[in-house]
Amino acid sequence: MRNVKLTVAYDGTNYHGFQEQRGTGLATIQEVMEHCLGRLVGRRVQVIGAGRTDAGVHAHGQVVNFNAAGWPIPVERIPLAINGLLPADVIVTDAREVGEDFHARRSARTKTYLYSIWNNRVPSPFNRLYSSFQPVPLDDGAMSTACVHLMGTHDFKCFQAAGATVKTTVRTLYRVEVIREGSLVRFIFKGDGFLYNMVRIMTGTLLQVGMGKTDPESIKSVLESRRRALAGPTMPPHGLCLEYVEY
Amino acid sequence: MRNVKLTVAYDGTNYHGFQEQRGTGLATIQEVMEHCLGRLVGRRVQVIGAGRTDAGVHAHGQVVNFNAAGWPIPVERIPLAINGLLPADVIVTDAREVGEDFHARRSARTKTYLYSIWNNRVPSPFNRLYSSFQPVPLDDGAMSTACVHLMGTHDFKCFQAAGATVKTTVRTLYRVEVIREGSLVRFIFKGDGFLYNMVRIMTGTLLQVGMGKTDPESIKSVLESRRRALAGPTMPPHGLCLEYVEY
Repeated sequence: MRNVKLTVAYDGTNYHGFQEQRGTGLATIQEVMEHCLGRLVGRRVQVIGAGRTDAGVHAHGQVVNFNAAGWPIPVERIPLAINGLLPADVIVTDAREVGEDFHARRSARTKTYLYSIWNNRVPSPFNRLYSSFQPVPLDDGAMSTACVHLMGTHDFKCFQAAGATVKTTVRTLYRVEVIREGSLVRFIFKGDGFLYNMVRIMTGTLLQVGMGKTDPESIKSVLESRRRALAGPTMPPHGLCLEYVEY
Repeated sequence: MRNVKLTVAYDGTNYHGFQEQRGTGLATIQEVMEHCLGRLVGRRVQVIGAGRTDAGVHAHGQVVNFNAAGWPIPVERIPLAINGLLPADVIVTDAREVGEDFHARRSARTKTYLYSIWNNRVPSPFNRLYSSFQPVPLDDGAMSTACVHLMGTHDFKCFQAAGATVKTTVRTLYRVEVIREGSLVRFIFKGDGFLYNMVRIMTGTLLQVGMGKTDPESIKSVLESRRRALAGPTMPPHGLCLEYVEY
């Protein structure tokens, strides 16, 4: 086995998420990558992705690994070769050889997600595919205070999509921050793992604080309640981006 | 007559330019705006645009004016009303009432265009529609020097698309600058007017300087020659954006 790790950036607008959806006829990032890598390697290739991003979700730094055995191309030449076949909205930005035991999902130590809000009284035609539009002015200070309450190790069950089942809903967030660049408000979440829809629900909850509907301290009781109904709405997928995966 | 001036931002990707193309069945910004304004005003509306952007060219600050006579809505409510009808890639960002003699094109004193280059060894899926990809490292200092030679009043005939006919090819550029934000290189051109394809050809010429194919001083002799063949290539439309029109 020759284990190769690729970093992938994609505009998720035209894809039905990362994961292969066999027999549905829907294009996914995994299928596009496996198809193009397969053409280069000359046999069927299977890629393992770090995060199963949903339909419409973007990535700056998704990571995948695959077995490049029998493919003699030097690893540093892989991005140019594969980008020549990939569509313009999926780009391999880096390639390196890794140990046999590297697994893009299981070896990941932390993941960083960004959620972007276009906070202006009029929408932006240029950010419409990469941010969620929110015309109500947001209180950045109140949202920053609320962010602090999300950091650390907690049971995040209240921020998990209803119906999802996992062994444990305890996760650790190392960084929760809100940064404004003009009309663009970015929520940054770095953690050891995320529950289904967790980032989109946390952002929806922080926005309620920013709009003055709830106060920053209420986040603590929402967390303690473990009740999805007490958290904010699930934000739409197109504002979300998998920024970075750390190993 | 009730003369209303609108500022319009649009993602030109899916349009065949600003100007109406009667009977072609191709969507243009002018047609989309006239259609939506007509529905609001209750009669056929004609808009006059400041700049006739080409197919694929974007705008942050295109300006149009139209006669809103008989339409009782307060001018400050117009953006919200029209944006409710316009597609998501065309947005009115401002509206104000202006004097009867205001003409979006003829009254314009200066226009500012931006041309964006994605200068990285790998393309960007997020900037692919709004910048031109250039993997060769660019010498920003050399390009800045060349920019200085373009400023001022010159005969810009060498930067005009072959075959175009205008009374005079003399124009004045008040600002020509190159600004880098990470991998994004932005060329800024502010002038009293622009010849057909002038910004795209000036950018192509500056890039040849940036790649070391010609030296910054050569711009002077290219200008003096008045020969299109001595200038650089015409850059593709999708990197171009009409940023601002001054009155």
